[in-house]
Amino acid sequence: MAFCLNKLAIFGVGLIGGSFSLALRGADRVNEVVGVGRSIANLKEAVNRGVIDRVSDAREAVKDADLVLLAVPVGQMASVMQAIAPHLGPDTIVTDGGSTKQDVVALARQYLPDHLANFVPGHPIAGAEKSGVTAALPGLYQNRQVVLTPLPETRDEAIDLVAAAWYACGARVAVMPPQDHDRIFAAVSHLPHMLSFALVNDIAGRNNAAELFSYAASGFRDFTRIAGSSPEMWRDICMSNRDALLGEVDTYLQQLTTLREALANHDATALESAFTQASIARNEWGKEQK
Amino acid sequence: MAFCLNKLAIFGVGLIGGSFSLALRGADRVNEVVGVGRSIANLKEAVNRGVIDRVSDAREAVKDADLVLLAVPVGQMASVMQAIAPHLGPDTIVTDGGSTKQDVVALARQYLPDHLANFVPGHPIAGAEKSGVTAALPGLYQNRQVVLTPLPETRDEAIDLVAAAWYACGARVAVMPPQDHDRIFAAVSHLPHMLSFALVNDIAGRNNAAELFSYAASGFRDFTRIAGSSPEMWRDICMSNRDALLGEVDTYLQQLTTLREALANHDATALESAFTQASIARNEWGKEQK
Repeated sequence: MAFCLNKLAIFGVGLIGGSFSLALRGADRVNEVVGVGRSIANLKEAVNRGVIDRVSDAREAVKDADLVLLAVPVGQMASVMQAIAPHLGPDTIVTDGGSTKQDVVALARQYLPDHLANFVPGHPIAGAEKSGVTAALPGLYQNRQVVLTPLPETRDEAIDLVAAAWYACGARVAVMPPQDHDRIFAAVSHLPHMLSFALVNDIAGRNNAAELFSYAASGFRDFTRIAGSSPEMWRDICMSNRDALLGEVDTYLQQLTTLREALANHDATALESAFTQASIARNEWGKEQK
Repeated sequence: MAFCLNKLAIFGVGLIGGSFSLALRGADRVNEVVGVGRSIANLKEAVNRGVIDRVSDAREAVKDADLVLLAVPVGQMASVMQAIAPHLGPDTIVTDGGSTKQDVVALARQYLPDHLANFVPGHPIAGAEKSGVTAALPGLYQNRQVVLTPLPETRDEAIDLVAAAWYACGARVAVMPPQDHDRIFAAVSHLPHMLSFALVNDIAGRNNAAELFSYAASGFRDFTRIAGSSPEMWRDICMSNRDALLGEVDTYLQQLTTLREALANHDATALESAFTQASIARNEWGKEQK
């Protein structure tokens, strides 16, 4: 589907929103991009970098917009939806980039009840530990996945437009119910973030933290990269997907306790068996990523 | 100190041993390198790649050697020490590349009691998830750290020679007691490996593992890279450093349980505070790595 957006409004011009704009501009799929956000400095930087054409406010931004992307932390989603609801035209399609989906769907039902046919919840799987418009890249979504979790009310045409926009960014698109999304990402994303934050805190809180950090090497670096992520964003994600994440943390605690018991019982065979299973699974998965 | 080894003997010509040889050869610090190992195929490959000059056996390898590097998994250290003990000349210096040090020291006391003055336990901090001679690189040790944990009996001249060899490989050298080494690396290396193995097993053991893996992205990839490591090597490391590692696992379980309670209690403030502490510490450390 060849499309060109006349006006795109982005709320939250950071890594996700900024990269979306840059990718669509690079593909010649948008005429004008307006940005709305909390930080004036960040918005000015976005204009300077050519990520957006101009700074706007909620009311003016959505006026006559073909597409609105809500790329704010999940904790700000409610207030942004409230701000735009009175001003959304009947043809404007709204999507978001939130990392959790059941909560965003619930907020849309509460704050955008007259606009559900044109609301397409989405999650581009391209998180990085950096944030702000300076982190935005035109190629961020190349070969990445985007999950769309439409409501029963969502029109097919709205889904098609949002999917086409993501394809134009170079992404692949999967569609699933929001609860499936949240269950999957609790396991493969939200849990690892919790574990990584916990490890860094475990080390950082000690008297000899400086000594310990000075001997940490590449394994530690990669394991803890995601612990450098935005605390606010991850607070919101964890609270939003609390039930699924609690289940994941409990399953993980069991798994780790099992390994601990093998170690405590001098059971080298059990340890090696567990490590072998993990190593094979990880390396198989790693091959598929290339 | 300008030195040149006439004969270097390497037991275990893999990532660690092979890279040591390549680096010393590149720096023109060794005339002849002989290799000993379990896998004939790996040793032949090492000859083909110019990593070693020839394949040898324990007795012949150590004869007239200036330096012997034991780069076998910690679980094989005892049998290799037993094999070389009767044939070590009085001037031959022995070092190792094991990831745990108190156990290697104990083995040396048991199997090399007449050679402790020339034994310099070492640990190059350059582990990677790959193994075998095909993973060896001449630049592996550039700007990496090597920890030496000499015994009270070890001669200064032996320490100096081993340190000089590692400097010639491009590494920095730290010296500390073996128990300090093991305590530090339980926290910053052995624990993260346990956690990463546990996460992959947690996912891999489920009915919908394939679906979950298909949505795992870069955060998961980096977090689990170390779970692709050699199961045998990590079984040995964990068993060797069991007491310190058990302590680390228990501390971590407490840390994770604290985060879990914050989540269970809807305590967003506590979560954000913990994430902020971790994020700041991780990013500060990350800056120092550059």
